Amino acid sequence: MITRLSTLFLRTLREDPADAEMPSHKLLVRAGYIRRVSPGIYSWLPLGLRVLRNIEAVVRQEMDAIGGQEIQFPALLPREPYQATGRWTEYGADLFRLRDRKGGDYLLGPTHEELFTLTVKGELSSYKDYPVILYQVQTKYRDEERPRAGILRGREFLMKDSYSFDLSDEGLARSYRAHREAYIKIFDRLGLRYVIVSAHSGAMGGSKSEEFLAEAETGEDTFVRSTESGYAANVEAVTTPAPPELPIAGRAPAQVLHTPDTPTIDTLVEHLNGAGLGRTFSAADTLKNVMVKTRQPGAQQWELLGVGLPGDREVDMKRLAASLAPAEVALLDDADFAAYPFLVKGYIGPGALAANRVRYLVDPRVARGTAWATGADRPDHHVIDLLCGRDFTPNGTIEAAQVCAGDPSPDGAGTLVIARGIEIGHIFQLGRKYTDAFALDALGPEGTPIRITMGSYGIGVSRLVGAIAEQSHDAYGLLWPREIAPADVHVVIAGKDETVGATGERLAVELDASGLRVILDDRLATPGVKFADAELIGVPTILVVGRGLASGVVEVKDRFSGERTEVPVESVVAHLRELCNK
Amino acid sequence: MITRLSTLFLRTLREDPADAEMPSHKLLVRAGYIRRVSPGIYSWLPLGLRVLRNIEAVVRQEMDAIGGQEIQFPALLPREPYQATGRWTEYGADLFRLRDRKGGDYLLGPTHEELFTLTVKGELSSYKDYPVILYQVQTKYRDEERPRAGILRGREFLMKDSYSFDLSDEGLARSYRAHREAYIKIFDRLGLRYVIVSAHSGAMGGSKSEEFLAEAETGEDTFVRSTESGYAANVEAVTTPAPPELPIAGRAPAQVLHTPDTPTIDTLVEHLNGAGLGRTFSAADTLKNVMVKTRQPGAQQWELLGVGLPGDREVDMKRLAASLAPAEVALLDDADFAAYPFLVKGYIGPGALAANRVRYLVDPRVARGTAWATGADRPDHHVIDLLCGRDFTPNGTIEAAQVCAGDPSPDGAGTLVIARGIEIGHIFQLGRKYTDAFALDALGPEGTPIRITMGSYGIGVSRLVGAIAEQSHDAYGLLWPREIAPADVHVVIAGKDETVGATGERLAVELDASGLRVILDDRLATPGVKFADAELIGVPTILVVGRGLASGVVEVKDRFSGERTEVPVESVVAHLRELCNK
Repeated sequence: MITRLSTLFLRTLREDPADAEMPSHKLLVRAGYIRRVSPGIYSWLPLGLRVLRNIEAVVRQEMDAIGGQEIQFPALLPREPYQATGRWTEYGADLFRLRDRKGGDYLLGPTHEELFTLTVKGELSSYKDYPVILYQVQTKYRDEERPRAGILRGREFLMKDSYSFDLSDEGLARSYRAHREAYIKIFDRLGLRYVIVSAHSGAMGGSKSEEFLAEAETGEDTFVRSTESGYAANVEAVTTPAPPELPIAGRAPAQVLHTPDTPTIDTLVEHLNGAGLGRTFSAADTLKNVMVKTRQPGAQQWELLGVGLPGDREVDMKRLAASLAPAEVALLDDADFAAYPFLVKGYIGPGALAANRVRYLVDPRVARGTAWATGADRPDHHVIDLLCGRDFTPNGTIEAAQVCAGDPSPDGAGTLVIARGIEIGHIFQLGRKYTDAFALDALGPEGTPIRITMGSYGIGVSRLVGAIAEQSHDAYGLLWPREIAPADVHVVIAGKDETVGATGERLAVELDASGLRVILDDRLATPGVKFADAELIGVPTILVVGRGLASGVVEVKDRFSGERTEVPVESVVAHLRELCNK
Repeated sequence: MITRLSTLFLRTLREDPADAEMPSHKLLVRAGYIRRVSPGIYSWLPLGLRVLRNIEAVVRQEMDAIGGQEIQFPALLPREPYQATGRWTEYGADLFRLRDRKGGDYLLGPTHEELFTLTVKGELSSYKDYPVILYQVQTKYRDEERPRAGILRGREFLMKDSYSFDLSDEGLARSYRAHREAYIKIFDRLGLRYVIVSAHSGAMGGSKSEEFLAEAETGEDTFVRSTESGYAANVEAVTTPAPPELPIAGRAPAQVLHTPDTPTIDTLVEHLNGAGLGRTFSAADTLKNVMVKTRQPGAQQWELLGVGLPGDREVDMKRLAASLAPAEVALLDDADFAAYPFLVKGYIGPGALAANRVRYLVDPRVARGTAWATGADRPDHHVIDLLCGRDFTPNGTIEAAQVCAGDPSPDGAGTLVIARGIEIGHIFQLGRKYTDAFALDALGPEGTPIRITMGSYGIGVSRLVGAIAEQSHDAYGLLWPREIAPADVHVVIAGKDETVGATGERLAVELDASGLRVILDDRLATPGVKFADAELIGVPTILVVGRGLASGVVEVKDRFSGERTEVPVESVVAHLRELCNK
């Protein structure tokens, strides 16, 4: 069926929408692919829905190819399974919750681990039934605090989520690898530039986890990679190499100094270096103690936590939050400081924390035997040569410090560079968190139960439309890879001449008949308007039927390269079929 | 791709599920097509999802064929548009409502008139842009009081809803006809037995409206049709022909009688006929006054309403509710009666209602000049010869009386018979209810605005799976029409013989390669188990590869007729291709 712009439900916009910052968001709205209904909630207009469906088809093909079986769960789910795993509470304000007319608690599913686990438990019993991979392409809901960037971070979105169920860790590793390879095929087919990074497993529980990030300067995920090795990780997953422990014996004793007006690291370092101590201090020699409060899911009470890190680093709140998840974390406010008079702002040290039984976690660089200049818990006083393991003993380590370009790569090869991306896929060895919660066992060959182990694998299908648009556009509009483009050829009838119109129509019919997907601009608009819309819509091949017709040629324009080729009108259908591999 | 039962995520059940009453519900669960998650909320397992997708495809093809353009709205919608049309309130408890983290009011869309209207207003402006038909296949939500019959009346369900936008009433009539014809094609392709009935327009507003009902004794919709004409209507839409008015002058005066112990119609009729009045009374000569209370959407207060109807009829609460929609209606309880002492139970007459300014609506048979025996508003007293239009004047008429088999057909031809069905489609000339609410105008050729007129058209896509199963099954299982069946051929390897297994495999591969959709039962189970599952699953053609192989034949079984044909193994692929028109 030919898509005629004279009747297509499409209005392109010359102006960027006021609420859009990212190019993909601006262009998808301007080109009439999506429309905003509410924050983070969008409608799909005809061209957008086609791209979305084309992406879905690619995802389905590759999931089917690894033996995935498609099923479909509801989006409206009862509370009980999520209560059983604790996620009803853990999800916090991100979960849309509602009550039905009888007062029953329901939620709009953010992911479906619970339902998949319960369904497998209902259907399968013998070890012979395993392994199994199930997936769905389904609408999901998250009440994001800051929905943004159009469909890149929405509150209603389309996801492919799959789950593998295996009898053994080796089986899980195989299912994980199969998904990893399928995801590579999918993202390659979609023409994306992406990296696979080690990921922090976050609130989901489980062990091995990787994210697929589409590279984009505008992306909201920060990741690092090594200058030398293949190491790449999202910032939350970067681990800090701990320096070797140092001996305690024979080290200089701790010494409290009067350091007036030195509430910041800079003022402290300047003071120490002017104090005639016979050595030079840098910010990296100081120990900064940042006070936060944490709260476990469902708890009423906040708990105080001290985070100690070298003074040349800031706390990265996303890394801190990932390390503490599923607990919430927040900085202390003035009221909190007032409630804990032992916290002397600017001069907090490990001493007062220990004396008041405040949990104290430190950066891995604060290793046993390292010496620090830090607060002495009195105004205008610091202590130097405070030795970790002798003068203070933290409750453990925590990954909370910012990661900086030039930091050593955790794998020991090279240093880190920092880049940004959009998370488009996530693969995850969940392990037995959910199968334990629901006692999902298979009956083994000897009649003994085998606890199943799970993987969970997600692709943000609607987000992919945005991610591809973010990577693939120019100043004039969108640039769709052919496989997912809303059409193969965009035929522009350029001119009011009757022969031009009739030839455009005829070519569109012939192209359509030969299996190509055709958009035909048969509107009364000027060629200029039509060209601009063709560029904006972003079909990979534009066929212009216009003045050249007098000399028997039409123009084929490659939307990606901008290259224009004159082709004899009688051979253009064959030419385009070849171009499109049809 | 061959679907192998050895790995398919499927467990068939020998027992009916405890909560199922209707055959379709029992069989869809037993055959592993659907699973219940919560009341009225179901998961689709692989075979069920295929049937659902196949039905979707048929619906899309026919919608595209009439020029429908597919778009997709969110299911999670902000309150404001529904507030603007009053439906936020009118929908009552059927609407799932929720709040987001910022306290904003949202709903889960039950239908999308508001969104379609607003979207068209946003995109189109000139009369040249019209007419337009837009549709979506989308998940919808209704918090049904009594979800039942599996997917036939769910709380989360898949619907195709389309909307036409026209410049004129004639245009709307054309769009309506196009949908009517498309629906006929769709339901014909799905092999359904159905009737098209005139429908009551209910809470949706608007005028002409028809429903497509799949005939099923177990259906929850009652409809009538004429014994002689083509008239068919759902019971809510049946109109009662009013008898001719009778003259008032010279009629017998009303007369109050002492009628002890006659609180029911039967006791009253018996008393009157034994009272020596010189004539015979039947229940149809008495006027029964049923007291109900109604409440407008959003109102706090209930309002009293008297419904007067001939004593040989009961009130049909569904007809009454349809007549009063969008107001709620409920019978009076004892507390209500206590609050209105002028209501003398068993002896209520029009007099007390008028004296107390209670709204009073009567059945159309209670025409001006008709005489009635009815309550005299005193215990043990009735009045006879109470003349409508002389002794009492109702506030209007209402369709609330039950419709009975044998009633005259409203079109004057024949009498009515009563049957039951499942609503599978609804087409509806909405008119300007929504375009008025949102001021949707097109700029006309002379620069004057033209108010757009709308139609709304729905098909219950997920319900169709149930409706087809309800019409098409036998004692052994489901019977799917080929176009929507989960496969074309179900190959049963019947026997452990190596040649049997290898031949079954080879035939499955060849059938798959020739474009047929194949299920292969390659399990280790007994032939009996395999035959039972094949019947239960309901693929239209079953190919049995078994003992006959020794004499070079396999068996082709027609699941509908039960007919078995022996076919030489070397020609069976060609035979089946022809059978399936591939």
